[in-house]
Order: sequence, then structure tokens, then C-alpha cells
Amino acid sequence: MSNKPSLHTSLSPALLHLYDLSSSVIVIIDVFRATSTIASALYNGAKCVIPVDSVPKAIEISKSIGGIAAGERDGKIAEGLEHGNSPLEYGRDFIENKTLVLTTTNGTRLLQMALDKNADTIISGSFPNLSAVCDFLTTEKKHVVLGCAGWKDRFNLEDTLFAGAIINRVKKQFNIHCDSSLMAETMYVKNKNSLVDFAPKLTHYHRLVERFGLIEDIKYCLTADVANVLPVYAAGKLSVR
Amino acid sequence: MSNKPSLHTSLSPALLHLYDLSSSVIVIIDVFRATSTIASALYNGAKCVIPVDSVPKAIEISKSIGGIAAGERDGKIAEGLEHGNSPLEYGRDFIENKTLVLTTTNGTRLLQMALDKNADTIISGSFPNLSAVCDFLTTEKKHVVLGCAGWKDRFNLEDTLFAGAIINRVKKQFNIHCDSSLMAETMYVKNKNSLVDFAPKLTHYHRLVERFGLIEDIKYCLTADVANVLPVYAAGKLSVR
Repeated sequence: MSNKPSLHTSLSPALLHLYDLSSSVIVIIDVFRATSTIASALYNGAKCVIPVDSVPKAIEISKSIGGIAAGERDGKIAEGLEHGNSPLEYGRDFIENKTLVLTTTNGTRLLQMALDKNADTIISGSFPNLSAVCDFLTTEKKHVVLGCAGWKDRFNLEDTLFAGAIINRVKKQFNIHCDSSLMAETMYVKNKNSLVDFAPKLTHYHRLVERFGLIEDIKYCLTADVANVLPVYAAGKLSVR
Repeated sequence: MSNKPSLHTSLSPALLHLYDLSSSVIVIIDVFRATSTIASALYNGAKCVIPVDSVPKAIEISKSIGGIAAGERDGKIAEGLEHGNSPLEYGRDFIENKTLVLTTTNGTRLLQMALDKNADTIISGSFPNLSAVCDFLTTEKKHVVLGCAGWKDRFNLEDTLFAGAIINRVKKQFNIHCDSSLMAETMYVKNKNSLVDFAPKLTHYHRLVERFGLIEDIKYCLTADVANVLPVYAAGKLSVR
């Protein structure tokens, strides 16, 4: 055993209880699309993103602070809201200097679970901010848990592929003894040069593209470093560190 | 959507609640080593295998019926028992016409969970009986859940690789819309010609081989069709169908 910090991958929120977060950085991963949207909004100048667990709460908070209420349920804009969970909705013209109050199916819930488990540090990651996440993890030198949001507790491959992308870049700095991480990196290395071509095999692709026509969202969410900022969670908000 | 039955892979007992078992065959998968041991004992003529959840129960039942009490905890023979969870312990000379009463860390527990969820049919599978399992699934034409036992609710790769081996053989007969199954088959196809060489990368390999020297067990557990019988669970017992 080395003195390097450990790195584990939690493949679903239903597996998060297996990992001690109290001395770990947890990376919240919801590639399609919450954590890609968070990176996009912050990269384009949003003051911060406030993740909330319900539509009424999103509306209430956004009204009280003059923010933008947004969110999705089951892949589409949530009833009662005008803005959804697409990273392409949050260009600089629209979001700069505003606060986004966001509610989503999976990512928001996982973040709340990490809070309940007293995570040392919570950050959010997806391909658009891959490098910022990796730089933070290697600089911080703490234990790491890569938390895949999945889909309603089911394993999904897009979150796993992003966990694999992180592992592929940072593995020398960590002590990794975790079958989930080995699998994630293997799947990433196998598909890294053709992520967009691989996407039609994913369950969630069908939900987003065949039902809602969101192919441009998919492409954005699978492109590295197009919104390369680091969202860190503190006092109820994700903001750029 | 086709009229074919569905196939899903549950990567951990902690994910089993996501799947409806009431009209499904569930394959209990605990490659290292419970379901390999079950196949081995039945192939070598055991009358049946009675899976139980505790050492005292194993001792009590084996005494009352004149069977062999066996089991492991944390990879080694459980305290109070003389026989463990190695498929190589159960050669024909020893086990023929006897009843094995077996308790293990993960496989036994998953089987009990499948019972609690009213699974339509419960069978047990591992590489030593790969063909028997595949033949049954394609003949039965019911929905299938491949249930990986994992390690104390953690994902493990050896169970996933076996799920992938099944999928690779039977996928044309099923409607598969499941990222776990896609991943499992991909990992299997990538490693199928070198399973034993791949094994040292697995978390559980270190537990079994570095701590207990069980390399021959590992090889047996990764060899297809060396104990090619189909263990079916009914009335508290696994016996050959």
C-alpha cells in the first residue's frame, strides 16, 4: 500500500452508502445533462447555480432572488418551468451575472445525498470541464469518490465513461483498488476516440434524442473542456473556484 | 420493440430492487466462488445443495439430515466449519450422493433476496456451467435478470464478466436495453481469451490468492463448462434439472 490517497467510483446513488465521504472529495457526475449544464452556465458567467430538489422550490427561490428557475423531469423541461436542463440554453447572452436555480432527476438528488453523508468537498464534473476537475483532484491530494448519478438509481454508461476519463488522467496520483474504477477506465479507453458514435448504444440517448431530438446536447455533453471551470459546492450554491 | 423477452443485469444486490423478478428467471452469479462451488458439487453427484444464511444453521441442518456443513466468511473457511467454499473440495469421491449445506458471504444472501422478491425461477450460474445456463435461458423464453452477487454490495468484475459471457451467447434471443448489460458484454469480449491473465487486476483476486493462495480455485472458477449442470432452486434446495 502506498501513501497516495484512494480513489473509488460509485456507479449509482444506491451504492453511495458503501463509501466514506467524510474525508473525501466527491465529484458529482451527471453527464446527460445536469453537470454539463452547470459547467456551461458557470463558464458563461452565471453568478452561481443553486441546486434544489423540487420545482416549487426552484420557482420560490428564483423569485426571491431574481434568478432563473430551470429544471427537467424525465428528460424534458419540468412542468411549470420555462427553462430546462440543456447546456445550450445557457449562453453568455442569457446567463451572465444571473443565478440559475436548477432541479433535475438524478444529479440534484446525488448532491443532496453527498451533503447528508458529510462529504469533505463536493464538486461537479462532466466532459465539458474534465481538465478543471482533474487539476483540482491532483492538486487537492485528498481521497476521491467519483459519484455517478445514473438514471433513477440504475447504472448508466455515460457517467461511467466520464469517471473513466478522470481515472485515465489522474490514476498515477492515486491508490486505486476498485473494480468499478478499473471497469470505468477500460470502457473509457475503448471508446474515447468515438464517444459521440458510441452514444446511440446508451439507454439515455434514446430518451434524449429519439424522444426529444437533443443530439446537439449530446455532442456538447461529450466534448472535453468546452466549459472548463470548476464548480465547487458551498453554502447551498455551486460557484466557480 | 420486439416481442422477445427482456434481459437486464443487476450489478450488485443493492441494485436488485430496481428489477421486477416476479415473471423473470434470475441467475445468481457469485463466480468467486459460491456458484462455481455449487456447480462443482452437483456435477460431482451431490444430491443437492442447501444454501443457508448462517454457520449455526449450516451445522444444525447438516446434522439433522446427515449432510456436509460448509461455508466461508471473508474468503476463508467459516469458524466452526471443516469445509469451505472451494469448488475443488467437492470431488466425486467426497460429495457423491451427499447433501451440501452451504453458507457464503454474498451468493447466499442474493439468493434469499431473490426469494423475498418472489422470483419466478432461480438458477445459479458461473463459468463452470455457462452452457447449461445459456441453454436454459434460451429454451425457457422468459424475462431474465442476471444477478451479480458482488462483494458486500460492491460491484465486482468477475461476476460482471460472467454476465457478459451469458449475454454474448444469448443476446439474439432477448430484447436488451440496459447499459449494465452492454458494459458487461463489452468487458467480457475484451477479456474472454485471457480471463486468468486478467484476474490479478481484480480486487477479489488479491483477497483469495495473495491472502489464501487459491490460484487453482481462480482458474477453475474461470473455466467454461467444466461442471456443466444446471442448478435450479426449489423448496429450499438447489438441485440439477
